[in-house]
Formats: sequence, C-alpha cells, structure tokens
Amino acid sequence: MPTSIVETDIAKLDAADPLAGFRKQFELPAGLVYLDGNSLGALPTRTSARTAQVLATEWGERLIRSWNISGWMEMPTRLGDKIGRIIGAAAGQVISADSTSINVYKTMAAALAMRPERRVILSTEDNFPTDLYMIQGLMQQLGDRHTLKLVDGEHIAEYITDEVAAVTLTHVNYKTGRMYDMPGITAKAHQHGALTMWDLAHSAGALPVHLDDCMADFAVGCGYKYLNGGPGAPAFLYVATRHQNSFSQPLSGWLGHAAPFAFTNDYAPADGIGRYMCGTPPVLSMSALECGVDMMIEADMQRIRAKSLALTDLYIQLINESCARHFGHEGLQLATPTQRETRGSQVSWQHPQGYAIMQALISLGVVGDFRAPDIIRFGVTPLYTSYADIWRAAQTLCQVLDQRLWDQPQFQQRKKVT
Amino acid sequence: MPTSIVETDIAKLDAADPLAGFRKQFELPAGLVYLDGNSLGALPTRTSARTAQVLATEWGERLIRSWNISGWMEMPTRLGDKIGRIIGAAAGQVISADSTSINVYKTMAAALAMRPERRVILSTEDNFPTDLYMIQGLMQQLGDRHTLKLVDGEHIAEYITDEVAAVTLTHVNYKTGRMYDMPGITAKAHQHGALTMWDLAHSAGALPVHLDDCMADFAVGCGYKYLNGGPGAPAFLYVATRHQNSFSQPLSGWLGHAAPFAFTNDYAPADGIGRYMCGTPPVLSMSALECGVDMMIEADMQRIRAKSLALTDLYIQLINESCARHFGHEGLQLATPTQRETRGSQVSWQHPQGYAIMQALISLGVVGDFRAPDIIRFGVTPLYTSYADIWRAAQTLCQVLDQRLWDQPQFQQRKKVT
Repeated sequence: MPTSIVETDIAKLDAADPLAGFRKQFELPAGLVYLDGNSLGALPTRTSARTAQVLATEWGERLIRSWNISGWMEMPTRLGDKIGRIIGAAAGQVISADSTSINVYKTMAAALAMRPERRVILSTEDNFPTDLYMIQGLMQQLGDRHTLKLVDGEHIAEYITDEVAAVTLTHVNYKTGRMYDMPGITAKAHQHGALTMWDLAHSAGALPVHLDDCMADFAVGCGYKYLNGGPGAPAFLYVATRHQNSFSQPLSGWLGHAAPFAFTNDYAPADGIGRYMCGTPPVLSMSALECGVDMMIEADMQRIRAKSLALTDLYIQLINESCARHFGHEGLQLATPTQRETRGSQVSWQHPQGYAIMQALISLGVVGDFRAPDIIRFGVTPLYTSYADIWRAAQTLCQVLDQRLWDQPQFQQRKKVT
Repeated sequence: MPTSIVETDIAKLDAADPLAGFRKQFELPAGLVYLDGNSLGALPTRTSARTAQVLATEWGERLIRSWNISGWMEMPTRLGDKIGRIIGAAAGQVISADSTSINVYKTMAAALAMRPERRVILSTEDNFPTDLYMIQGLMQQLGDRHTLKLVDGEHIAEYITDEVAAVTLTHVNYKTGRMYDMPGITAKAHQHGALTMWDLAHSAGALPVHLDDCMADFAVGCGYKYLNGGPGAPAFLYVATRHQNSFSQPLSGWLGHAAPFAFTNDYAPADGIGRYMCGTPPVLSMSALECGVDMMIEADMQRIRAKSLALTDLYIQLINESCARHFGHEGLQLATPTQRETRGSQVSWQHPQGYAIMQALISLGVVGDFRAPDIIRFGVTPLYTSYADIWRAAQTLCQVLDQRLWDQPQFQQRKKVT
C-alpha cells in the first residue's frame, strides 16, 4: 500500500493525540479495529463499576428509597442537562427518555399542534426510516390531514414554504455521513413560520452541535451510538424553552404530570421540559448512559471534532492513494462529502459488492457495517479510534479489493444485518 | 401483642414454606422488612452476575455482533413469551417493550381503531392514573371524539353497553389490592361487542393470570414490581393472536416494521405481535428483567398464590386480633378485601395519619408505602417475603399505633413520595 503517509507517521499522530488517554478508558477487544461506534458505541470501563454500584447499593440496599436518595427521580433531567452541554443546549431543555422513535412522535406531535393551520411536513428522502415511520403513524392518528413531503436533502431549503408546518431531518445522514446545514435550514424554516425538528442520532457526541445558537425548535437523539450508552440506551429530546409550555404532548404519562404522586385522574402537564416525560425512567440503562455522557463532557467536543476530521481525512486520503484503481462506477465510490464542513464522523463508500466486502473486512478484524443497497460504513469515534485503526482499516480494505475477497462464498452469504 | 398465633407458629410456617429457598436468591438488606415489592421488587442475586456478563462479554467483547449472536434482537419476543407463561398467554402474544404508559397508548389505539363506530371508553375511578392520562392523550390525538367514562369498579360490568369501544381497568387496584373479575368483565364486554385492555401492573408475578382462558383482548404490565426487573424495568404488552393483524398501532417505529433493515421509507407493519415493537430494545434493562422473570417461572404461580394468600391472611388476622382498639372511622380501616378471591398480593389500610404512620414504620425497619390521601400499603412478594416479616410488620404497626408514634414531628414532615 504505497501512500504519501507511512506507518511511522501514523505512530507519531497517535503519540501526539490529546485524546489518546481516553482509549484506555474503554474495553476494546484486543486486535479488533472497531469502526462501528456509530451503530453501537464501545463499553466505557467505568460503566461496569457504576452499574455494579447501581445494582448493589442503589437498588439492592436502598431499594425504593433510591428514587429520592440516589437521585433516580432527577436522572432524566440531570442527564438531559449533561447531554445539553454536548449539543449546545442550555439547562432545562433536554431530557433523557424513551427511545428516539418515541421522542420523534412527541416532538412532531407538538410541532404539528403548534401550526394547526398547516398541513405539510417536509423531510428528506434519505432520512432515517424510523423518523418517517413515526411521522406516518402520527399523521394517521391525526386523521390523515397532513402530507409528508420527502425531498432531496441537498435542496431542502428550497422547498420550505408557508404551507410547511415542520421541517425535520437527520442532521448527519446515517448512510453517507453528510451533515446538513442546521443554522441555514432552521433560519429558512423560521422565515416561513415553520418549526424544525433535528434528529441528532449521528451528531450527538460525534461533533459540536449548537441547538440554542441555531434557534432550533425541537431535537431528538440516540444514546447508544456516539454517546456510548450501551445497547438500546435511552434516547433524549430537546424542546427550546420558548416552546415548552405551548403544547401538551400526547404521550402524557404520569411522570410528565405536574404532580405525579397526587394520583389525580386528570392529566395536567408539568411546567417546562418535564411534560415530555412519560413513564418511569429505566434507571439501569440511564445510569450506564450517564457514564458515556460524562466522558464526552470531559473530552470536549471541539477536540473530538478536530480528531474526527483528521481521522476521516486520513482514511479518505489513504484509500484515494492506494486504491485508485478500484474506483469507478462499477467499483468503489466515496459516499461521504470531501468537504469538512458537510462531513459527519464517518466515512462511507458505495460498492456493488458492499455486503460481501464488509463480511470480508469483519473476518479480517475490521468492523464497520453495511447499509443496503451498497454502502459500507465506517464510524469514527475519536475517544477510542486511533490513527493506527484507520491505517489498518485502509490496508485491509485495499487487501479485500486487491484480492477480490468478496468473491468467496462465505462472504456472499447473507446473514441478518443490524 | 396477644394473638392466637404465636411466634413459634411463625417459625414453623417459614420452615415448612416450599418457596423459602428463593429468599436466599435475593439481596435483601439485613434487618429490613421489605413490603414494598409492589412498588420496586428486590434485587435477585443472579441479576448482578448476568448484568456483568452482558456488559463485559456481550457488549464489551462482541459489540455490534451481539444483536445477532447474543440474542439481543429476539430479546423482546423471547422475554415476552416467558412473561406469557406467567400471565396465561401462549407464545407469540406478548412482547417486552417500552414503558407501561407507552403500551397503554399502543393497545388502546388499537382497541379504538377496531371499534371505529363507538365512542365510549369505560374505566374505573380508581384506575392507576397513568392509564387514564395516556388515554386522555390518545383521545386528544383522535380529535376529542371519545368519552372516557369512569365508574365504580365494583359495578363496572353494569355500565358495559353497545356504545362502549373498550373496557380498561387495572386488574388489581394499586391502592386497595382489590382484584377485579377478569373472566366476568371480559365476557360481559364481549357480549356487547366491546374490547378489553387489562393493566397487570399488580398482577403479573403476584398471582396467576389467565389471559388466554379469559379471552382477554389486550393487556399491559410492569417489569419493576412483582417481576423484580429493577428500577424502571421495561414493560410488556399482550395482544391476542386473533387481533394482532387487525390494526397497525400508531407508534410505528422501525423495529415494528416488516423488514427493519431494508430501510424503506414507508412503514409496513410486521406480521403478528412484532408490530407492537417501536424503538431499539434496552438490552441492559431487559436482560435484568429476564432474571426476575426466570425466577418467577421456576417458582410456579400456583405456589406463589398459595403463599401470598397465607401471608395476607396472616397479616390481616394479626392486626385484627392485636389492634382491634385502633379500628374505626377515625382510626384504622382495612382497605383490602377479606375475601381471598378478590384480593391481590398486598394489604392496605386506611388511617387519617397514614403518612406519618408509614414514616414511623420505615424508621423502625418496616418498609411499605403511602398512597394519598390515607392509604398505607404493604406488598407481599412470596419469593422473598417470609412469615417472620409479616409477624414483625404486624408487631411494628401495633407499636406505632399503641404509642401514637405518628405524632412525632419528624414523621409528620412531608417528603417527596414515590
């Protein structure tokens, strides 16, 4: 693999990395290059100790009293405020709760109710499907009076008109890693009286987000990707302070009530972000998520972004230099933007043999993932991805392409994909 | 405390208890009588080991592959089927998912959609508030076309008419422990073409439930009470096979899709119970819940019921015999049915000083809970509640009443209640 960068340069980059110390704080399998943290983040070492403490002391010993004395009751807002620091939201606007899907429903129900005279929901063709599915379910509940209009994300701003109730898109596309223009699209939406709902699944913990500065209205996001919260970790949602008391969201469970323990028969929403709570918070999962979020705060999002761009630049450069002969319409094509300002924290390529290529890579100890029909996806997570990981990923991808390893039958055979 | 039963009898009861071995499989604080397992079940010893394994091996080592190789993807249905064994549901009708509140929304949305021409939802005045709140949110989403009619639970069957779309009630009332007649009410509902939705929060793991035999339509329930799943454990829902494909519930997240990983833009519900899934399952919380459920299956619900009734009988008898002078309209009154067939697995008393009495009891190492305005509540959980626990709880309650400990200012001071 002859490239302008050589292995000794890589070692220097790792030695000079100000975030290098964080890698030791994760339980990474020896010898594995894990570039799938955008699907499931790695296990922080502290999470095991913290979970054991929650089990033995908070649950086992203190039992029911922990709702008060171990801070369980405040967990959704305390953790929400911490997540807020990562996504540019002042305190009191974020809670950790439920799943991303459920939070899409809550926030979109609020947005539509706040624009009762408007009938168009604008989103992108490439939005993550569950967002679209939840909106479809909501539209059906509301009597099929709305239209979900899906357009090319690159030109979405041009479609924002005075008929649009809400513009919703995933800030960083899950397949390509393309980042959309949050300030510009939000401003355009507001010019037309529309509200915005941003899905931060591939942004929170991946790069700096500035919800307050952008005057974003609503946002949701995921705890198990870049926040390293663990499989199926609780999600979060953001509602700008100015909108919080405008509407009572329909998933009006008891913990969103103004006085949950008064046990009255009529729902009365809590003031502020609390009304976006629904059921009892999942304490075990939420305390695990808090470990991941704490590390992210310690690391600083600016440093994470700088390293993320350096890593994705490096990967693109190495493949460009060493795999040039494999590029082309029937071969490899970069799916991720080369411009840094529109790139998330991943590198994706298209290849007609994408599925088998990824299987071959995994068999060689480089774990990314495949997204139908033809995307191979490599997530870059600066707290634990090293420059050496990128070097080995590039080398291995070259090897698979050079040796046409995708032709081997064991890699062609389709398994369940997650 | 002169009673017809003496302490040596209690020791004999514990010695002869066929479930006694289970108590050692819980991490119970020494010296504490814990009668609040109907609010938060105790920690099973196995849960700590299992959680550590999920963290270290399944998440830490296997990472993303665990969705396939560690059975994470099947967890909601596998665990659902296990819960089904506890509540009388054949396989394929129960999933573990989301919170009880969210599951109320899903199942009630389905029930109302299946009876589009009907406008009345019938429930009880004493239903657990979050069920009512979620229904209120759903009604609002549906354009305020329905009426939620709340009646005295004892006479609910008389209110079932041909206008009723769905009858929903909590099988065992959370305050009084009164159990409603599932077969009778379900049959009456069906005679009138109405559907039923049973909340099993205080039934699942507390006593045998026979959903299939009763021809129940829908049910929901809680993982953190009698199932010992841990704080905020995932909930579950039941949809009878005959109804599963009748309707696509509105919280239509990607994991309820027929082909979640095809990433198509239009929702198409999975066949069967799978369409009641929404977001990504919370693996940590769900694997903890599975530990509690496994123990329940090992123990057998008939044996649990027999011991539960023996314990609640004993508690009522001891208080009747030793605290007779404290009974009366301004004093103690039994809120739980004396008839075994309508009693859940708890004993509740009303007392005007209920709050302070419970604070005094807790300070003396007997933990129950208080429910406004005047209920003191003692949950009986046969896997870890002993006859000696009941003896001490009765003795201590007598002591508090005899010595009017509720008058002490530290017990009068209201704290947050959970």
